[in-house]
Amino acid sequence: MEVSTGPLGQGISNAVGMAIGEKHMAAKYNKEGFDIFNNYTYVICGDGCLQEGVSSEASSLAGHLGLGKLIVMYDDNKITIDGSTDLSFTEDVKKRYESYGWQVLVVDDVALGLEDLRAAVKEAQAETDKPTIIKIRTAIGYGSSKANSHSAHGAPLGEDCLADTKTFYGLDPSKKFHVDEDVAEAYKKRTAAVEEKRTAWDELYNKYAASFPDKAKELKRRFSRGLPDDVFSKLPTFEIGKDKDQASRKYSNFCLNSVAPELPELMGGSADLTPSNLTALKCSGDFQKDTPGGRYLRFGVREHGMAAICNGLFAYGAFRPFCATFLNFAGYALGSIRVAALSKFGIVYIMTHDSIGLGEDGPTHQPVEMLESLRSMPNVNVMRPGDSNETAAAYKVALSTPETPSVICCSRSTVKTIPESSIEKAEKGAYCAVEEASPDVILIASGSEVGICMDAAEGLAKEGVKARVVSMPCQDIFLAQPLQYQKSILPGDVPTLSVEASSIYGWHRFSHAQIGLNRFGKSGNGGDLFNYFGFTAENVIDKCKKMVTFYKGTPVPNLMAKPTF
Amino acid sequence: MEVSTGPLGQGISNAVGMAIGEKHMAAKYNKEGFDIFNNYTYVICGDGCLQEGVSSEASSLAGHLGLGKLIVMYDDNKITIDGSTDLSFTEDVKKRYESYGWQVLVVDDVALGLEDLRAAVKEAQAETDKPTIIKIRTAIGYGSSKANSHSAHGAPLGEDCLADTKTFYGLDPSKKFHVDEDVAEAYKKRTAAVEEKRTAWDELYNKYAASFPDKAKELKRRFSRGLPDDVFSKLPTFEIGKDKDQASRKYSNFCLNSVAPELPELMGGSADLTPSNLTALKCSGDFQKDTPGGRYLRFGVREHGMAAICNGLFAYGAFRPFCATFLNFAGYALGSIRVAALSKFGIVYIMTHDSIGLGEDGPTHQPVEMLESLRSMPNVNVMRPGDSNETAAAYKVALSTPETPSVICCSRSTVKTIPESSIEKAEKGAYCAVEEASPDVILIASGSEVGICMDAAEGLAKEGVKARVVSMPCQDIFLAQPLQYQKSILPGDVPTLSVEASSIYGWHRFSHAQIGLNRFGKSGNGGDLFNYFGFTAENVIDKCKKMVTFYKGTPVPNLMAKPTF
Repeated sequence: MEVSTGPLGQGISNAVGMAIGEKHMAAKYNKEGFDIFNNYTYVICGDGCLQEGVSSEASSLAGHLGLGKLIVMYDDNKITIDGSTDLSFTEDVKKRYESYGWQVLVVDDVALGLEDLRAAVKEAQAETDKPTIIKIRTAIGYGSSKANSHSAHGAPLGEDCLADTKTFYGLDPSKKFHVDEDVAEAYKKRTAAVEEKRTAWDELYNKYAASFPDKAKELKRRFSRGLPDDVFSKLPTFEIGKDKDQASRKYSNFCLNSVAPELPELMGGSADLTPSNLTALKCSGDFQKDTPGGRYLRFGVREHGMAAICNGLFAYGAFRPFCATFLNFAGYALGSIRVAALSKFGIVYIMTHDSIGLGEDGPTHQPVEMLESLRSMPNVNVMRPGDSNETAAAYKVALSTPETPSVICCSRSTVKTIPESSIEKAEKGAYCAVEEASPDVILIASGSEVGICMDAAEGLAKEGVKARVVSMPCQDIFLAQPLQYQKSILPGDVPTLSVEASSIYGWHRFSHAQIGLNRFGKSGNGGDLFNYFGFTAENVIDKCKKMVTFYKGTPVPNLMAKPTF
Repeated sequence: MEVSTGPLGQGISNAVGMAIGEKHMAAKYNKEGFDIFNNYTYVICGDGCLQEGVSSEASSLAGHLGLGKLIVMYDDNKITIDGSTDLSFTEDVKKRYESYGWQVLVVDDVALGLEDLRAAVKEAQAETDKPTIIKIRTAIGYGSSKANSHSAHGAPLGEDCLADTKTFYGLDPSKKFHVDEDVAEAYKKRTAAVEEKRTAWDELYNKYAASFPDKAKELKRRFSRGLPDDVFSKLPTFEIGKDKDQASRKYSNFCLNSVAPELPELMGGSADLTPSNLTALKCSGDFQKDTPGGRYLRFGVREHGMAAICNGLFAYGAFRPFCATFLNFAGYALGSIRVAALSKFGIVYIMTHDSIGLGEDGPTHQPVEMLESLRSMPNVNVMRPGDSNETAAAYKVALSTPETPSVICCSRSTVKTIPESSIEKAEKGAYCAVEEASPDVILIASGSEVGICMDAAEGLAKEGVKARVVSMPCQDIFLAQPLQYQKSILPGDVPTLSVEASSIYGWHRFSHAQIGLNRFGKSGNGGDLFNYFGFTAENVIDKCKKMVTFYKGTPVPNLMAKPTF
C-alpha cells in the first residue's frame, strides 16, 4: 500500500495510523505459525514535514505507543522553498525524536554511503520496541549543477541542467526516457522476488482461512468495507414519552456502544476529551504499547495528529476509524479532515459541544462557523441530529458511507425528543418534525434548535399561524434527494425561517430569513446564552409573525424556482 | 500586558510573537541609556499546551531565533482530562525543548520548594541567548482531597473538598472570599513596588521623548494603531491599457512594498513560500537572532505557529503583522485565525494560489471551500481582488481595520484588468465592473473570474442579451453598505448568476444560480482546469441564456425582498 499525501506533515502522521493498524491487526488475527499481519510502515519525509505541528503530535504519540515497525527515512537535504534550513529550522532533530522515545539513526552521506542506509534500515527493523527515524544527509538535485540549491526544489531542472546531470551519472544526455538494460534487469529480479513473497503469503493465508474460517470471513468483510447484515438493528430505539430527554452526546454514546461490539473495525478515540465527548468503548480497553488488541485510542491533546492518524488507519484497509473533540476544535484538525474528504476516507468524527449551548467555556470553545466550514467542504456529511432517532440515523449514514467522512455534531445540553422523528426520515437529510399541509410559515432547524421551533409552532398555532417545522440534520443529504421530495418538505414559496445557533452563512439556499449568529458567543450558562442570542420560542414566534406580515404585501420569492443546468 | 487564550497551544505560541515584538522594538527604538523596551515574556502552560502541534512549531522557531527573554513555566502536573499523562504523553519534554535550543530548568517539587522556582526564574532571566522553559512538578488540586486527580481539572472542587483544602492551608473553611490581612499587606507592598517601577519608566520615557521626538511620535502612532496621513497615496496605481496584466499576487507584492517603507509596524513573512507568495520586503531584511531590527520573518513550514505568533506580535501593541501561505493552507492555521478574529487582531493574511487556477500542485493544494470557511467566520474580511486596483483596495481596507483580520486572496495566474475598477469602488465590497442600466441578467464574480464574466458579457451583447457584471471582492463589506447601494448593484429581481472557482456554498444569498465547484479540483495546467470545470466565457454565456429563458416563464424570485428583523 502506498499513501502519497501532498500537504506537508500528513504523510508521516498517516504512517503512525498505518503502524497502529498493523500492530492491532497482528494482535487480533495472527495465530501461532500464522503471522498474516506482519509489515513495516516506511515513510520518506523531508524538512518541511518535520516542521509541521501535525507531525510533532503524531510522532510523540508513536513514541509513546512504541510502534516498533514504523521506520521513517528523513531526507535531510537542508533546503526548503525559502532557501537553506538555516533560515528557520535549526533544531536538533535527532534529539527531538529521541525525546519522543524513538530510535534515531544517522546516515551522514547517502550519496557516498548507500550501504550505510541499507545497514540503518536493517537496524531499524531489528528495533521492535520503538519507532525509528533515519536522518539521512542528502543533497537536493545531487549530480546536477543545481545541487544543494532551492532552485532544485519546485521547478524542473531545465534542459541544460538535466543534460549535465545525466552526464554526471554516466548516462547519454541525448536519450530521453531511457532505461539501461542492467537497471531493467535489476527491477525484473526484484519483481520476481516480491512475487515469490506474495505467493508465499497467499499460501499462508489460505491455510489460515481454512483453519480459522470465522476470522477469514471477518477479514474479508472488513477489507471490503462491508457491514454485518443486521448491524443497524443494534442501534438503540427510544420510546417517546417514556425515555427521558438527554443530550445528543449521550445518544451518541449509546449508538457508538451499540454497534461497536459488532464492528471490530470501529477503532478510535478522543483528543483528551473522553469524559466530555462520551466516546469510551464499553467493549474494548485502550490500544497501548502492551495492549495492542485494544480499540480505544488515547490521542492526547492532539486534534490534527488524531485526524491524520485516523486517515492512516483507514488507509490500512480494515478499519472504520472514529475520533472526537469539541466541534470548535475541528478547526485545529481541518488539514487532515480535508485529506480524508479528498481521499474518500469514511472517518467518523464525533464532535460534541456543538454550539454556544456548551456554555461556560466561552467563545473560544463555542463553534459559530465550524458547521459552515465543514458543510462547504466537498464529500463530507455534516450531521447535527435533533434527538435520539436522528442520532441513530447519523450513525447509520456514517457507517453506510465508507467513502464519505461524516461529522456527527452533538449537543452538550439536553435536546427535546421529536415525536415525528425516525431513523428512516432523518436519513433523508430533512423531514417534517411538525407536519402542516398548508403552512403560513415554515421553520427549518437542526440539532437543539428543532425543539425550540416545535415549541414556537405550538405558540403560533394558538395565534392562528400555521407553522410547519422541518428538522434538517444534514443539508447535503437533503440536497441529494429527488427534487420532488425536496419540494414536498420545502416548497420554496412559503415564507421560511431557518433557526440555527451558528452562522447564517449558507442558509439563504433554504430560507428567506434567518435566526443565527453573526458574532462570536459569550461565556455564560448555556440556557442563558440561548436566551441572550434569541434562540427561544418567543423570538421565533415574533420573527415568524413579522415574516407573515411582510409577505402579505409582496410575493414570496420562490427559492425552488431555479434553472437546472 | 496579559494574554489569556483558551484553545490549547495558543498562549505559548502567542508568547513567541510577543518576545519577537520586544526584541524588535528594543533593536529599533532603544538608545544608549534608554532601554525603553526591556521586558520579559512569561508563559504559564500545561501538559495540553505542549501536546498541541502549534506549540511545537512556535517553540522550535523561538529556539532558532534565540528569544532569550521568553520564559515558560510549565505546570507539569501529569494530569489531563482523560486522566494521567501516562495515557498518551510520555515524551521527555526536557530533552525536546533542549532539541529546540532552549535552556531547560527543572523544579522537582514546587509545593515544597517555592524558593527553587524563584531561583529558576532568576536563572532564566540571566540566560539572554536562549528561551527558557522551567519544568515545574506540581500537583493539581494540591492541598485538596482531589489532589493529583483529573477530577480537579474541569469542575469545581465542591463544598466539602473546598473546606478540606482551606483547612489544609490553615484557613477558616467557614469564611468565603476572605483575604487575610498579611496577604492584603503583601499585595499592597507589591503594588507600591510596581507603581514605583512604572513611575521610573515614565520618567525615562519622557526624557527619551524629549531627546528623540520623531521616534516618540512614531511610537505614539504605532501604539494607537493610527496610520500616517498619506500612506494610501503610496499605493500603486495602474494605467489601463498601458500596464501589462499580471497575477494578483504580483499586485499584492507591489502594494505590500509600496506601504511597507511607511509602516514600520508592518512585520511578517511567509510559511516557507516567500518566492510563491511574493511577500519579501524590499525595505527590510530578515528578523533573525543577530538581526532583530529586520522585519521579515522566516516562519518555516509552520502555518499554525505563524498565525499564532502574529497574534502575539499584534498583542504587543505596536505591530500590524502580516503572514502568508497558499490559501488552502489557511486550513492548517484556522485555530489561530479564529483567535485573531475573536480577539479583534487586525492581522493581514496574504493567501495566494487562491483557486484551482494554481494548477499542477493538484487538489491537495487547490482551495475549494476555504473562501467559504473564512467568510463564515465572524469579524474577518475575506477579500479576493479581481485586478490591480482591487488589490490596492484590499490593502487599504486591511490596513484601515486594525480590529478586523483581513484575508487577501490572490491568484497565481494573470488576471484581466477591469477598466471600471477603482480603489473607491472596490472598497465598497462590490460594484459594477460592466455597467448596464436595465440588464437581462447579472453576473457576480470575484478574483480571476471577473475577467471571464466581462468576456461573457461582451459575448452576450452580441446575442442581444444585456448583462451587468458585478465584481464582488468582499461579501461582508458589501453587506455592510446601505441597503440602497446594495440594491443599486444587485436589485434582486434580475436573474443573477454567480461565478466563482470555489464552492457555491453561501452564494444563494446573492444569486439565483451558481457556477462553482461541488467537488475537489484536479491536477493539471491552471487554464485547462478552468476550461474543464466550466470557468469560461462560453459556459457563462450558455448558462446566462438558459437563465433568461427559464425566467421568461416564471417570476424572478426577488432576493432583496426579505423582512428585516
